[in-house]
Amino acid sequence: MIDQRALPRVESWVELHTAEEVAQAIRNMIVRGAPAIGIAAAYGVALAATSALGAPRAEFDRRLEDAYQVLGGARPTAVNLGWAIARMRRAAETARRAGAADVALAALLEAEARLIETEDLAACRAIGRHGAELVPRQATLLTHCNAGGLATAGYGTALGVVRAAVEQGKRVRVLADETRPVLQGSRLTAWELVRDGIDTTLIADSMAGAAMRAGEVDLVVVGADRIARNGDTANKIGTYSLAVLARAHGIPFYVAAPTSTIDRECADGAGIPIEERDPREITEFDGTRLAPEGVHVRNPAFDVTPAALIDAIVTERGVARPPFGPSLAAFLAP
Amino acid sequence: MIDQRALPRVESWVELHTAEEVAQAIRNMIVRGAPAIGIAAAYGVALAATSALGAPRAEFDRRLEDAYQVLGGARPTAVNLGWAIARMRRAAETARRAGAADVALAALLEAEARLIETEDLAACRAIGRHGAELVPRQATLLTHCNAGGLATAGYGTALGVVRAAVEQGKRVRVLADETRPVLQGSRLTAWELVRDGIDTTLIADSMAGAAMRAGEVDLVVVGADRIARNGDTANKIGTYSLAVLARAHGIPFYVAAPTSTIDRECADGAGIPIEERDPREITEFDGTRLAPEGVHVRNPAFDVTPAALIDAIVTERGVARPPFGPSLAAFLAP
Repeated sequence: MIDQRALPRVESWVELHTAEEVAQAIRNMIVRGAPAIGIAAAYGVALAATSALGAPRAEFDRRLEDAYQVLGGARPTAVNLGWAIARMRRAAETARRAGAADVALAALLEAEARLIETEDLAACRAIGRHGAELVPRQATLLTHCNAGGLATAGYGTALGVVRAAVEQGKRVRVLADETRPVLQGSRLTAWELVRDGIDTTLIADSMAGAAMRAGEVDLVVVGADRIARNGDTANKIGTYSLAVLARAHGIPFYVAAPTSTIDRECADGAGIPIEERDPREITEFDGTRLAPEGVHVRNPAFDVTPAALIDAIVTERGVARPPFGPSLAAFLAP
Repeated sequence: MIDQRALPRVESWVELHTAEEVAQAIRNMIVRGAPAIGIAAAYGVALAATSALGAPRAEFDRRLEDAYQVLGGARPTAVNLGWAIARMRRAAETARRAGAADVALAALLEAEARLIETEDLAACRAIGRHGAELVPRQATLLTHCNAGGLATAGYGTALGVVRAAVEQGKRVRVLADETRPVLQGSRLTAWELVRDGIDTTLIADSMAGAAMRAGEVDLVVVGADRIARNGDTANKIGTYSLAVLARAHGIPFYVAAPTSTIDRECADGAGIPIEERDPREITEFDGTRLAPEGVHVRNPAFDVTPAALIDAIVTERGVARPPFGPSLAAFLAP
């Protein structure tokens, strides 16, 4: 996979061979983005199965179980990780019950991982199609972090909406928050969009409010790491502030995410675990110290935007409107 | 003066000999902060006078005039710069009318610069005393950028309020926004407060909203670069977002600044020029490219917070409350 930490300076690709290596890549944010880490974890399970071939059955199963654990624990907030692993586990258990041997099981898990990837790409295209209907013919769209091709199997969720609107001939400008501390906006969103020839302007996160007040933002579209049943949405830290600012300025605020990001187990945002990351993401840059010793640091990677501040949630099955309890439930029905 | 760009890593001092060098230090942000650049500019005028001693009278006066121009044009937003230069010019003109020779004039200008510095320090202490009354006995205070000793003659405006409250025995914790792109929060505010032993927690700018929602912020106190007659306040980019967020969470939002920051010529915020700085502040860090070529960048250094979002403006003459038109006018009366 591409090493997202090295972008946009270098397009460096890393080859991963084991579930532990994949888990490490997720922890290190070589790969990030809720759908993308779900897909990566699925391949990690497939790698665990393939590399365990030839081992006794009990060890094969134990190594598969270890893979579920290490991958599932790599990062806490994005539900797609647990969702993908649960889906891989179900596939494995169903195959076992049907009498599949290890070789067949490994092949099946690889196929399931590919299917998760393929379905995510299709979901992104459908999200783009549905979301583009919310974009005026001429619009400046503000986004935060990276909910693009890099965060998914390709095409993106929030950036899928941008791409689909542009493909429909709409004149879309993007304002991209740089997204401290990891700068996914500068490094990844700007890189993706400039490659696609889409008019993109980078701003510091703190400039979004002033841009809204100046009438420079027509809509806000962001991705999601976990959506509770009531529509409360965890996404990159700073999303909540944008939602408050958008509401204060009468600007529509949309979330774009596949239904795999909806957590059926989670009634509302209070149940979403928020990852606290290494303080050095804030106090250092490439090893250079930016802040004095002795200062405390908070570094939550995500925040929760309450459903009441969200005007629509765009999924591959359509656009959910408030109240999100019933509208999301309808999309989750088989 | 201390080179604020090198903090907190190195305490490096630079010696400036000419008005042009002082203007360059203001442009480069070796010195920044509205009161501090006013004081620096005043000393720059004094340096111009001293270094012109011995020149013919016409050249002496021309070099003084050049100093007013180059220093006054160094940065556009902070009114203290123009205020300090106007005061130096008045002092020079008054002395000339009284028949002062060049040597006397140069001595007088140096004395006037020292007086501006001394008055600012006294103003900061008075701001601290008045502002501390707004701080609960136990409180977490959020601040943005650096309105501290480094931004003033010492003690600070917003941080003067913190220091005075701490001196009164109040238990004050500070949440400091890192303040992209120049990181005055990480580099300067955290450095000042940690040296003073004040409990300080650094956050990315985008975390302020989530901290407010979590009930972790009791009040917001910021400095100012220019205050219009109606109370509209220009301050570091991101201040406006904080004010909107504070209002949405019912948290009081205070501005702390000396009356030299009030622009009598400016009826409201629409008249305040906003400096747009080098895009590389956003796209590069220490020469390392963070964003792809081809991306546009907006880099306004300030934004304007409308008076309606400000609960009080703390000056050395007392606490102004809305409506600010009359309350600020009372403080400007001789």
